[in-house]
Amino acid sequence: MNAFVLHERLAADTVPVAELGLCSARLMNDRTWPWLVLVPRRPAAREIIDLGEADRRLLIEEIAAASRELQTLHRPDKINIGVLGNLVPQLHVHVIARFTGDPAWPRPVWGVQPPVPYAAEELDTAVASLRKALGV
Amino acid sequence: MNAFVLHERLAADTVPVAELGLCSARLMNDRTWPWLVLVPRRPAAREIIDLGEADRRLLIEEIAAASRELQTLHRPDKINIGVLGNLVPQLHVHVIARFTGDPAWPRPVWGVQPPVPYAAEELDTAVASLRKALGV
Repeated sequence: MNAFVLHERLAADTVPVAELGLCSARLMNDRTWPWLVLVPRRPAAREIIDLGEADRRLLIEEIAAASRELQTLHRPDKINIGVLGNLVPQLHVHVIARFTGDPAWPRPVWGVQPPVPYAAEELDTAVASLRKALGV
Repeated sequence: MNAFVLHERLAADTVPVAELGLCSARLMNDRTWPWLVLVPRRPAAREIIDLGEADRRLLIEEIAAASRELQTLHRPDKINIGVLGNLVPQLHVHVIARFTGDPAWPRPVWGVQPPVPYAAEELDTAVASLRKALGV
């Protein structure tokens, strides 16, 4: 069996929220933006086309679930979705709540400023809210 | 009936390639990167969650088709996918071929440098290659 191991950079930058049907849903530890990262438990996949059609169908529905969750909890002006992986080859999807007054608006968030980690209690609260909204 | 009208900025920045089941596939007129833009013919949609589940399923398969096409034609080091829409509210998906030596690597491409339009003949050739690869 091909065990699922999270890339060390994803492990360092994010905290676990929930195990969905295909993906590990994780919260980016950056309080600037409500920011989920979905990591399909398919460690060999780098691109969307490395997934089979059934997995892609799960993926788009989990992206939708993450989007709905961020909308419910944060009422953002826009949801941004990105599948980049130029630095971290393991397939992962960013789902980010954007606000017209946020520090990167209207540009994408990547590389704009160093992450601002949550305080410990704040992080616990954020993860608990996400779990509650996801019904896990 | 809700007629499909392309947002004026998408119309100005891209050229038509093909009509897929859900999306108008267009080529970004920037020779720096092989860059497709998929625009679902659902003019009221701003977010992935504004599409129904059947449309989302079509969308992820059309993203996969666009990715495969860029891989076949250009052999990139990575495919980048983005659903941003901070400037253009009409739902659209960027599918971009990335190379380790390209002018933005490893950062995302948006906002890095002004677009470099194709020469007229070069644009015709690029669109013809894309149509052939898509089988349209």
